[in-house]
Amino acid sequence: METTKVALIGFGTIGTGVAKILLEHADRMQKRTGRKVELTHVVDLDLTTDRGVSMPEGVLTDDLQRVLDDKEVTVAVQLIGGTDQARTVMLQLLESGKDVVTANKALLAQHGEELFERARELGQSIAFEAAVAGGIPIIAAIGQSLAANQFLSIHAILNGTCNFILTEMEEKGINYSEVVAEAQRLGYAEADPTMDVDGTDAAQKLTILAQLAFGAVVDWKEIPRIGVDQVDLDDMHYADELGYAIRLLAIAHLSDAGLELHVSPALVEKGTLLADVKGAFNAIRVIGDAVGRVFFQGLGAGQDPTASAVVGDLIDTIVGRAQLTFKTSNLWSSENGRAPVRDPNEIEGCYYMRFNVDDRPGVMAELTGVLGSHGISIASVIQHDVGRCSVPLVIMTHRASAGAVASAFAKIKSLDCVHDDSVCLRVHERPE
Amino acid sequence: METTKVALIGFGTIGTGVAKILLEHADRMQKRTGRKVELTHVVDLDLTTDRGVSMPEGVLTDDLQRVLDDKEVTVAVQLIGGTDQARTVMLQLLESGKDVVTANKALLAQHGEELFERARELGQSIAFEAAVAGGIPIIAAIGQSLAANQFLSIHAILNGTCNFILTEMEEKGINYSEVVAEAQRLGYAEADPTMDVDGTDAAQKLTILAQLAFGAVVDWKEIPRIGVDQVDLDDMHYADELGYAIRLLAIAHLSDAGLELHVSPALVEKGTLLADVKGAFNAIRVIGDAVGRVFFQGLGAGQDPTASAVVGDLIDTIVGRAQLTFKTSNLWSSENGRAPVRDPNEIEGCYYMRFNVDDRPGVMAELTGVLGSHGISIASVIQHDVGRCSVPLVIMTHRASAGAVASAFAKIKSLDCVHDDSVCLRVHERPE
Repeated sequence: METTKVALIGFGTIGTGVAKILLEHADRMQKRTGRKVELTHVVDLDLTTDRGVSMPEGVLTDDLQRVLDDKEVTVAVQLIGGTDQARTVMLQLLESGKDVVTANKALLAQHGEELFERARELGQSIAFEAAVAGGIPIIAAIGQSLAANQFLSIHAILNGTCNFILTEMEEKGINYSEVVAEAQRLGYAEADPTMDVDGTDAAQKLTILAQLAFGAVVDWKEIPRIGVDQVDLDDMHYADELGYAIRLLAIAHLSDAGLELHVSPALVEKGTLLADVKGAFNAIRVIGDAVGRVFFQGLGAGQDPTASAVVGDLIDTIVGRAQLTFKTSNLWSSENGRAPVRDPNEIEGCYYMRFNVDDRPGVMAELTGVLGSHGISIASVIQHDVGRCSVPLVIMTHRASAGAVASAFAKIKSLDCVHDDSVCLRVHERPE
Repeated sequence: METTKVALIGFGTIGTGVAKILLEHADRMQKRTGRKVELTHVVDLDLTTDRGVSMPEGVLTDDLQRVLDDKEVTVAVQLIGGTDQARTVMLQLLESGKDVVTANKALLAQHGEELFERARELGQSIAFEAAVAGGIPIIAAIGQSLAANQFLSIHAILNGTCNFILTEMEEKGINYSEVVAEAQRLGYAEADPTMDVDGTDAAQKLTILAQLAFGAVVDWKEIPRIGVDQVDLDDMHYADELGYAIRLLAIAHLSDAGLELHVSPALVEKGTLLADVKGAFNAIRVIGDAVGRVFFQGLGAGQDPTASAVVGDLIDTIVGRAQLTFKTSNLWSSENGRAPVRDPNEIEGCYYMRFNVDDRPGVMAELTGVLGSHGISIASVIQHDVGRCSVPLVIMTHRASAGAVASAFAKIKSLDCVHDDSVCLRVHERPE
């Protein structure tokens, strides 16, 4: 039986999960690939920390050059985080003739165009199932299984940390900062959770999905994004009263006007698939012109679910499928067409707004006057008597453009009768 | 650009959907495969019915031999239903050197072993994404994307007709026969819906999943199955009162004792993913040792969703992925190992039982005595005063073996104090 030699670059949480499967389930790897799969190098600067994996002598090294020089290593699993060193290593691996599997979404969102182009020139492949939604096989689904479809939309919960935070706030009635502290304690949130909670992580993943499903080439920094750090417990309560949950949604929606892309906390009708996603799960609802609606839910992070995706790609690469997929999918290539991305200000939607206003006559007229002058009509209003001189006023709008809404919202915030802590959130429309 | 010539055998509902995508979206097929995809033959005995597809001259034929003789046709889509003629045609296609895509689950459940063995001998491939759960890419997920995992269980709703019937009964409070008539009117149920409603269809699909995920070789006729035709509106009401919905579940569950396989209507806790599946949708919850729980939902039948899966396989075959998958997955091969299937009588579970009993002292003692003598303990009892001399008695049991439950149930039914229409259903256990 032939042997495929594999190198692992980055021996952190995910790398440890991958190494465990390769070393502890060698029989499974052999059965799935029809070959012997040998982990020959694990490269990391930290050679001392015990990861709980029993490694054969000489495999662990801090010298990447050993991998680059070993022509018998044909597949490399690249699990270095960040974008600078990861890019350099990725290029080195490709240039030394290795097919690469990676889980690094920031790297692909930032340098996908360069890396894929280089891989194509060199005749190597890049597989990246683990880069989006961890264990959920969404890259294979969109790129291969559902390839008969013209995709119409993707509505997704792509950050488990944010979903954990939102659903904990919702269920336990505790505020944002307390939940973040709890998430950090449980290991669901990083010590510095900024990239998760401000929507960066979801926007990077959406960039990859938008390329895969729609051929859109977009700088993730240009995707409008609002993080869950903008969500207040009060808004959860009003949303609940109105029949909605709040979820951080990453949306790609194709229409005749182009492709709409954004990441933001949105009011999602209770009882729908996306509103029902609880805890650290990810979920993706894809609509294709033939298949209709397909929904996926699973763990989007964590050692084992991410290792499942990485090793799935590794099997695909060893078997030779990944190379065929890479070649025909032409990602980030001009041959793939480039779907036009819509001006975010033109995107229409319904909105939820909350203001703290003076409790006196004329205030409602003043606010609704601003909305009216921006062409925004009101669907419903909630104002409870809370017995204070400043009262919360919640307004649900009919469809309006994001630009008009942003302008009206800024204008209302500047009114003397409106106090701090104003909030404006999208309302997710349930598609037909 | 090279051309791949494709033949379509069977021009019914699905075949029409497939032909539409190939003919109306030739550009899409070319983009996804990097080749020109030409539909050269469509074989059907009915040459006259207008399917609403504009077909090039000479493509539609009733002569299969033309396909078999045309060595330029390298891929055939085999959409003939049933198992006899379909088997013959499948073998002919393979023997004439074609890779085959099929949606026929009955054929694979019945003749999978023979067909896959023959295809291996001939060096051809069989792809069958559309055979299970229509548009949901579950075959690719289990066979490829999640291949790093040892699968632990599959809990699935695999028959959209049955799910439509159950959820209509539940939501509208109308009884089984009325809903079946409605389903037939809407096209969700066949004129003769027996294969759907008696669990045959789900058992055949489960046979395929059990082979794919667990290497189990099982005759679908040996999978214990109960159909939705056994579900009464009264049981829906009691289930609801107890916090459950009723769904037709196909279950494969691996334990140290072997693989548990069965199809039956089961009480599923409300608020869970499977209980929330409404209408004609299919859903599959897979648990793997690395990925944890992954959930898929989508349309399991219908022209376009099924055509999506068939054309996805066709793209895979044209690109060359399907052949690699076929070769390494070794389905229905002795090399794939054969997971031992458990004796159905030994499978443990909790049960819901409903009896119509005489409303007199001693009856409860008599029934519970039978359960006790079979080692079955009771979790809860519902008995409402309905002001009749015969009253319904609902018993929820703790875990007990299927054999003990069947024996106790038969014994109780034979008691003088118990009248007709007794019901025994499994209660789905929510896994950890």
